Amino acid sequence: MSGNHSTYDLLCKHQKDTALLEGVNALLGWDERTMLPSAAGPYRADQIGLLAGILHQRRTDSRVGDWLGELSQSDAAKDPFSDAGSTIAQVKRSYDKQVKIPQDLVEALTKAAVVGQQVWVKSREADDFSMFAPQLEEIVRLSKEKADAVGYEDCRYDALLDDYEPQARTAQVAEVLRNLGEELGPLVREIVDCGRQAPKEILHRDYPIAAQQEFGRLAASKIGFDFDAGRIDETHHPFCTTLGPSDCRITTRYQPDFFSSAFFGTLHEAGHGIYEQGLRDEWFGLPPGEAASMGIHESQSRMWENMVGRGFPFWQHFYPLAAKQFPEALGDDVGLEQFLWAINDVRPSLIRVEADEVTYNLHIIIRFELEQQLFDDSLKVADLPAAWREKYKHYLGIEPESDANGVLQDIHWSAALFGYFATYSLGNIYAAELFEKANADLGDLAPQFAKGEFDGLFQWLRTNVHHRGRCMPAEKLVEEVCGHPFSSVPLVTYLQEKLRPLYQLS
Amino acid sequence: MSGNHSTYDLLCKHQKDTALLEGVNALLGWDERTMLPSAAGPYRADQIGLLAGILHQRRTDSRVGDWLGELSQSDAAKDPFSDAGSTIAQVKRSYDKQVKIPQDLVEALTKAAVVGQQVWVKSREADDFSMFAPQLEEIVRLSKEKADAVGYEDCRYDALLDDYEPQARTAQVAEVLRNLGEELGPLVREIVDCGRQAPKEILHRDYPIAAQQEFGRLAASKIGFDFDAGRIDETHHPFCTTLGPSDCRITTRYQPDFFSSAFFGTLHEAGHGIYEQGLRDEWFGLPPGEAASMGIHESQSRMWENMVGRGFPFWQHFYPLAAKQFPEALGDDVGLEQFLWAINDVRPSLIRVEADEVTYNLHIIIRFELEQQLFDDSLKVADLPAAWREKYKHYLGIEPESDANGVLQDIHWSAALFGYFATYSLGNIYAAELFEKANADLGDLAPQFAKGEFDGLFQWLRTNVHHRGRCMPAEKLVEEVCGHPFSSVPLVTYLQEKLRPLYQLS
Repeated sequence: MSGNHSTYDLLCKHQKDTALLEGVNALLGWDERTMLPSAAGPYRADQIGLLAGILHQRRTDSRVGDWLGELSQSDAAKDPFSDAGSTIAQVKRSYDKQVKIPQDLVEALTKAAVVGQQVWVKSREADDFSMFAPQLEEIVRLSKEKADAVGYEDCRYDALLDDYEPQARTAQVAEVLRNLGEELGPLVREIVDCGRQAPKEILHRDYPIAAQQEFGRLAASKIGFDFDAGRIDETHHPFCTTLGPSDCRITTRYQPDFFSSAFFGTLHEAGHGIYEQGLRDEWFGLPPGEAASMGIHESQSRMWENMVGRGFPFWQHFYPLAAKQFPEALGDDVGLEQFLWAINDVRPSLIRVEADEVTYNLHIIIRFELEQQLFDDSLKVADLPAAWREKYKHYLGIEPESDANGVLQDIHWSAALFGYFATYSLGNIYAAELFEKANADLGDLAPQFAKGEFDGLFQWLRTNVHHRGRCMPAEKLVEEVCGHPFSSVPLVTYLQEKLRPLYQLS
Repeated sequence: MSGNHSTYDLLCKHQKDTALLEGVNALLGWDERTMLPSAAGPYRADQIGLLAGILHQRRTDSRVGDWLGELSQSDAAKDPFSDAGSTIAQVKRSYDKQVKIPQDLVEALTKAAVVGQQVWVKSREADDFSMFAPQLEEIVRLSKEKADAVGYEDCRYDALLDDYEPQARTAQVAEVLRNLGEELGPLVREIVDCGRQAPKEILHRDYPIAAQQEFGRLAASKIGFDFDAGRIDETHHPFCTTLGPSDCRITTRYQPDFFSSAFFGTLHEAGHGIYEQGLRDEWFGLPPGEAASMGIHESQSRMWENMVGRGFPFWQHFYPLAAKQFPEALGDDVGLEQFLWAINDVRPSLIRVEADEVTYNLHIIIRFELEQQLFDDSLKVADLPAAWREKYKHYLGIEPESDANGVLQDIHWSAALFGYFATYSLGNIYAAELFEKANADLGDLAPQFAKGEFDGLFQWLRTNVHHRGRCMPAEKLVEEVCGHPFSSVPLVTYLQEKLRPLYQLS
């Protein structure tokens, strides 16, 4: 046992040092997107590239394979969901994947993604998909090669999904998303057909940026983001990144004539941040101290942004403060009810990142279905724009007039992030399941929120989600916490119950 | 030759990759001092420690020794002051020093300095030198060990000085500083005895921070700091750091009721930054693309801060702008002449960092003399406070009432930075030599400055200092540019010519 114990310590030390360097890389990325002088881009790319190389060497170090080989046979590995057991099992999963990918394929894919993003920007500006198509074909080809190198049981797309939602299976995700689409489609149509329009103009008034900053910081702090162990800064494409166990940084973007973008963006990123800050410090760099999956991460951001932050109780507390903070915009002509409807405006639209809480999922289903077709060879890159328009017609009843507002709108494919989109909707589904269970466990949370008290939910999430790390697959985690199998029903119920009264649907 | 050429390329690639990582380390340090959340300190220290270890390994990699052994015999090494020759010679100097220091001594000294700074902070707060003395003794002991390991020709202090002012010798620096002290002492006494007091109160009026930020940025930009390849941020102890060839970051500190601290601090750091931005990009990470020495670095910051920024012509241009920018502080009761005198106020004082341009050098001479005595074993750490008071009495005619305002005021010794102080006064001396020569070469610069034109001096420094990198020792560089041996005469002349009229001395 002492031999095993020592090997286990070596493995943990190695992983924790790797995490130290990953935190350094995260700083390089954060700084690039918030602080970097305009001329310094190329050298920063070199720095990130060099560190990526050092990190890849560490992750595929053959000593790690030796340690894992020994530890997999040890008693510590017997319970794969325990802290030590999951450390061995999850590090082994990652290691086994990493070493299967040839170094030259890693480099080719990295390079193709860098070029891809550059070409994508130009192609979108020119609204010309044909400029992007050859590079996208190359990225898809290399991504297929990578999936085939890593291997899969059912279908190639499983291997891609696994990078973001470990151990999820395409067939099951497809079924859940299909059910979700079948429930949400009719709800959207009912809302459109009822003809009632949310007073969204009130969100496009004068919201001074300094006042927005102060208000966003207040709300993020109130729901539990710890500014002693984090920061908020401005950037063009908001994100959340973790540099170390007490250093989680969120970002947002302010528009002086629009309230929602920065405020809900801040709640969203704060939700990610609260999760990161809630991971157990002593396990930082090891699976028990890591986020369970991208889907679970997204569940945390969307729960705080939408289920809490777009809810009536939240604004019972915050609306009077908002009215004081933004006296020009939120005068006597507005009021809590109008404001609440405005921030819950639902309507079919073309751009995913601007979509409401309901239609957002339809945008995701479209991408998920197209990605599957690309990777089972039933759709060619060249046919993507037509397939895109067809899907939008089918799911949202509208068609983009241009590829720039259609198939070219997202950065993901240009960056080789196939398999990522699904996690956004999985996050919505997980969030609804967890939120329903938290309300059941704690009693109705609404009265607490109305008093500006969020610590009940916060602590519940700490115990039931954050402190559990990545000891088991996301789906199993949610199933264990909620006591029923993975299902989109809570999300649909939540949306129906919120939106039917707002739109006075019968 | 092709064999040598390839070895040379290997060396350069290795050094440039090391510089990439040094830039990453610089980012970790910059971020720590400007952005880091309060709880994140310990993890950041771990990150810096890990990277320092990786860097030390790279710097002492035995392949570097092999390459240098081969290259030292090659044709490329024949001219040690050429770009390729200095690359070989200077990298060899550094490598030979680094490998002589045992790894455990490096670690012990690093750790002693970390502890030293912590103990120093507490000891200064408590105004109790005896708390600090044991740790300082340890730091001095280890620093002696390091100096003895590296080796020296004349005296042990040479080995310390060499870290900051490569190839400088104690005896010669001592002579120049002694001469400087003998010239400046009487000037200070004359100023004190004349009884005239600069109207320094006008600098302590209401200077709103936002207005200071804008004005400092304007001035830094005007003298040539490139904000597309740099930034300015706030910090507690201002510094300048370089993260890459187009990424130099300066910092400053604002006080709402004091003009000088932030403004001259900004000019000072911008001077450092202009030097860094002027190094040849294509040689970044190699001696021809590195600063010549700390003394030369300081010459650039002090020239812009003092010789330019505290001069009459500079304020002929900037005073009208300042009066507009700070209407509360700089009303009709002030005017250019009063302002100029205030920013050139000379008086003996106890704190180095608050000292004027003249007495500053006396503070340095005191520290330089005490350090020499510590390292030639003629002074014990325990006797430092008494020796300190004696020196202040001798050079400045005043004595600190407490050690907190005396021997405990500087961080340097607690951080094991012995040999550093002298470079501040060497910088003043080099600055005066170079400024005199620039005026001789370009004609009187005053009329240009009075019009807000600084490009003449800027370009002269690019050619004569910045682009020459670290191809030769600092003293030789200045001697080559100025055409006469290293001398404190230009500095004394400059100070006499500026101050005698201000204080109406005969």
